[in-house]
Amino acid sequence: MTTLILHEYAASGNCWKIRATAALAGRAIERREYDIVKGKTRTPQFLATVNPNGRIPVLQVGDRFLPESNAACVYLADGTALVPAEAFDRADMLRWMFWEQYNHEPNVATLRFWTGWVGLDNLSAAQAAQLDGKRAAGDAALALMDEHLVARDWFVGDGVTLADIALYPYTARAGEGGFDLDRYPAVQAWLRRVASLPGVPNF
Amino acid sequence: MTTLILHEYAASGNCWKIRATAALAGRAIERREYDIVKGKTRTPQFLATVNPNGRIPVLQVGDRFLPESNAACVYLADGTALVPAEAFDRADMLRWMFWEQYNHEPNVATLRFWTGWVGLDNLSAAQAAQLDGKRAAGDAALALMDEHLVARDWFVGDGVTLADIALYPYTARAGEGGFDLDRYPAVQAWLRRVASLPGVPNF
Repeated sequence: MTTLILHEYAASGNCWKIRATAALAGRAIERREYDIVKGKTRTPQFLATVNPNGRIPVLQVGDRFLPESNAACVYLADGTALVPAEAFDRADMLRWMFWEQYNHEPNVATLRFWTGWVGLDNLSAAQAAQLDGKRAAGDAALALMDEHLVARDWFVGDGVTLADIALYPYTARAGEGGFDLDRYPAVQAWLRRVASLPGVPNF
Repeated sequence: MTTLILHEYAASGNCWKIRATAALAGRAIERREYDIVKGKTRTPQFLATVNPNGRIPVLQVGDRFLPESNAACVYLADGTALVPAEAFDRADMLRWMFWEQYNHEPNVATLRFWTGWVGLDNLSAAQAAQLDGKRAAGDAALALMDEHLVARDWFVGDGVTLADIALYPYTARAGEGGFDLDRYPAVQAWLRRVASLPGVPNF
């Protein structure tokens, strides 16, 4: 079977998604760590060979490189129960994964990064101007998730799919960005369900 | 066959993606127009029945609703040549679609919207503070596309896929947000290829 190498920064939720998917899908992956704070994903070599977008995670499949966490998860989970067999449900899974990248990650994950890595006192003026907007948009995302989960255990269908995996890590750590998960009890119950899946790594 | 209804705002590039995919996949869709400027996607009825996220496009499939343009495209193109049969290529298509929503649309499309709909003189302070950053990130996205397209005709493999459809509309109209497409000749040649596909609607 082709060697799989995850180019990652382990504290990144986007990287956790790929490790969790590999674990649930029973795929072995090697790991290579890069310190994003020290610019290790912006070196000429990284840009030329791993990802011209200068970001992790990237899943290396033999001599091919696949950036974008959610695309890598789909690759690893292809043909498993993590991807629904029914066409609408499969698209609905992708719906939540695209929503995560557009509505959730840029708000919930970015505030975690700005708080814990950059430092709120060190933000640029352009970043500081976005704090209130990202706080409101992040809470709107968490509220939408909570409403969706009130009457269901998983985002799509009757079992765990990649939608749950994609939404888990930055939601689980939302408190590090100043979000109050006590306001979202259905989300908290769902977080416990995901965390208790056999084989899922900690985050 | 199940009735397909596109809930849309026709000037939105995200809505064009779905119409273009339906045309190329030979699927008939009905269209319902909403004036987003007048808040027609934020009414209680829209939020309760069409999309709790208050956004278009949404593809209605019978009595089920599928938000997120790129997810709707995957649903419509399932089983056609617009989705590569080979697993890595299929994931690589999704890679570009996730990249579009994270790195391209929030910069290139947002500047078009702020310029042509909101008006640059009417931006909030938080929006105005992001202008330079979005301009730089949008140009970086266009430059990455140009570099990718120098030696190839399509984003993935040897023919048009949903990656091309997803990246087309806001790239084609990037000039409306102040981007200079003359700097990206490979992108311009690719835009002409997409626009000349039989059946693709104008944008």
